[in-house]
Amino acid sequence: MTAHVNGGDLSRLRQLNADSVIRVLRDERPQTLTELSRRVGLSRASTEDVVQELLEVGWVAEVEPAAGGVGRPARRYKFRADAGHLLGVDVGGHKVLALITDLDGTVRHSRQVAVTPELGRSERLAAVDRAVAGVLRAAGLTGDRLWGAGVATTGLVDGTGRVMLSEALPEWTGVDLAGHLRERVGGAVRVENDCKVAALAETWRGVARHATDMVFILAGWRTGAGLIIGGRLHRGFGNAAGEIGALPGAGWQRAPGHLRAWLSDGDVFAASRAGDKAATAALRRYVKDLAQGIAALVLTLDPELVVIGGGFSRSADVFLEPLRAELDRWCLRTPELRVSALADEGVALGAAKLALDLSSPQRLRA
Amino acid sequence: MTAHVNGGDLSRLRQLNADSVIRVLRDERPQTLTELSRRVGLSRASTEDVVQELLEVGWVAEVEPAAGGVGRPARRYKFRADAGHLLGVDVGGHKVLALITDLDGTVRHSRQVAVTPELGRSERLAAVDRAVAGVLRAAGLTGDRLWGAGVATTGLVDGTGRVMLSEALPEWTGVDLAGHLRERVGGAVRVENDCKVAALAETWRGVARHATDMVFILAGWRTGAGLIIGGRLHRGFGNAAGEIGALPGAGWQRAPGHLRAWLSDGDVFAASRAGDKAATAALRRYVKDLAQGIAALVLTLDPELVVIGGGFSRSADVFLEPLRAELDRWCLRTPELRVSALADEGVALGAAKLALDLSSPQRLRA
Repeated sequence: MTAHVNGGDLSRLRQLNADSVIRVLRDERPQTLTELSRRVGLSRASTEDVVQELLEVGWVAEVEPAAGGVGRPARRYKFRADAGHLLGVDVGGHKVLALITDLDGTVRHSRQVAVTPELGRSERLAAVDRAVAGVLRAAGLTGDRLWGAGVATTGLVDGTGRVMLSEALPEWTGVDLAGHLRERVGGAVRVENDCKVAALAETWRGVARHATDMVFILAGWRTGAGLIIGGRLHRGFGNAAGEIGALPGAGWQRAPGHLRAWLSDGDVFAASRAGDKAATAALRRYVKDLAQGIAALVLTLDPELVVIGGGFSRSADVFLEPLRAELDRWCLRTPELRVSALADEGVALGAAKLALDLSSPQRLRA
Repeated sequence: MTAHVNGGDLSRLRQLNADSVIRVLRDERPQTLTELSRRVGLSRASTEDVVQELLEVGWVAEVEPAAGGVGRPARRYKFRADAGHLLGVDVGGHKVLALITDLDGTVRHSRQVAVTPELGRSERLAAVDRAVAGVLRAAGLTGDRLWGAGVATTGLVDGTGRVMLSEALPEWTGVDLAGHLRERVGGAVRVENDCKVAALAETWRGVARHATDMVFILAGWRTGAGLIIGGRLHRGFGNAAGEIGALPGAGWQRAPGHLRAWLSDGDVFAASRAGDKAATAALRRYVKDLAQGIAALVLTLDPELVVIGGGFSRSADVFLEPLRAELDRWCLRTPELRVSALADEGVALGAAKLALDLSSPQRLRA
């Protein structure tokens, strides 16, 4: 068969191929064209075309050949994580965290501003401005030098970057976060719910890098979920996926309440770890309620992996086994259960990943 | 940029393009190459290549030009639904239904064999054999003439076509349905859970043809769910997605029980329709429990559409509005709610769709 290939066809093919090449170069040591070609299943000539294009836009660089070999060594290529910078901002109840990362999600600079859940809209936006200005200054960057900016916040966010509904933060429903940030950093700004981007961060830099179907649980004084399905963030038709916590039967509205008494009495996790029976009993009640909602997600999706993140995940050692046992009671197949290692940076990292996804090589050229 | 395109690249591109062309030709009136090219976003030359290949394998045919036009009319092409036959089998508690459909899901022949839930494994398999033999005889086909065969049954099914777990049917756990059918019809046989394929049928021939994210609810003396996510059947990592009913809090284990008393007293739906207060009250209780599980699915996935199918869906007129009201109580965004029009054939049709998905044009050529 003769192949007629026009521009439209090519751009689809090139997008697929560029994505494949970048994926391999990001995950692996530098590769020769022959190695790359084998890994991505393209002809050597097609691989060379893709690499050439990625060299031109700066996503890929040639690696200096190792000295001392015999004969002319084959050229090797690496992903250029330092080709650009991303801004990721986490706007929460207790903190605003702004990060500058490279294209690989390595955090280069960060700036945190403490806030309180009670703060009004303009005060919280002022804190966002301070965090963003601070981290840009630390990085020696201006907004127009960024490859992209992403913002994550509690509540439901619509496709234009406006908060549709926030129950946790006062005066937050209706705020046009994308518009606000765009005025400060220029360019495209993407806004998303914090649990959703935290799930994204786990597939980028976290413990879910190789998972295709994953449920992320934000476990803290607030409980939430983000879903990765078929390797992609599942947003839902109205951007409201993962909101199982809204169902009283899921137990999440009640769960953190079992630990509330300990807010003034010290750390319930440390107390349980030290053998305090009341703390352990409170944690059991917490886990029982937390597990109902997780079981509903697991029974619905049957994911490969459940990742526990959020503030409580640092103390997961004292509740992970009880949680697994509780899930075993309800699930037909309890998935692998892992604890996030991204700590407090997960949400902001996920926001940076949102920004990265805005800037594919094709988009840059267009 | 020069395009080097080798065999591996091409087959990926060809698969995408052939799928796009078939999708348009299936859904629309016959198309000229120019129309097709515009619809699928390919160059005219690429479109011609794809159509030529589809003509060769028999999926596409040229349409006789309309008489009486001026000048030579452009050639038009149509999807050849009659190019092949598919076998779809629904193995349930009360019936075994075998269908022969064309490639478009139009039912050409059907054969139903009544069974009871109490039947043992070998008796149920014998009923399957009778239904399959009967429908093949009616169609004048032998198994080797089929383009594919699909089987759907209650319970969890593994990737090899074996029933992993069936709680509804005795001696059904462990049965190798794929192996059993393969001996009778030859070729590849695909087996899947009945709720999952019923969801597939709705996207093929039912009310969800244009939905990308859809939740299918099998509402009957058994309650179950099948999920379409991103346009594809979502099976889950262990093929156990959609099993929210296993969670007692989802209400599905209890829901049909509210109607059980009416099994001997006549039709609860007709009684409610006629104004019987006790029947209406029983249906309210049913709907309350049914809605808990549906709300859990909706809050998790935020689908575009929920389709109500299964035996009770024929009487959905008396419970759809109460169900919608109940979902409104719990969901952040109640999706569109529609009633299946596939009646008792949905599961068997979905099984035929499974079979179709086994036989893409590329696979046929390979």
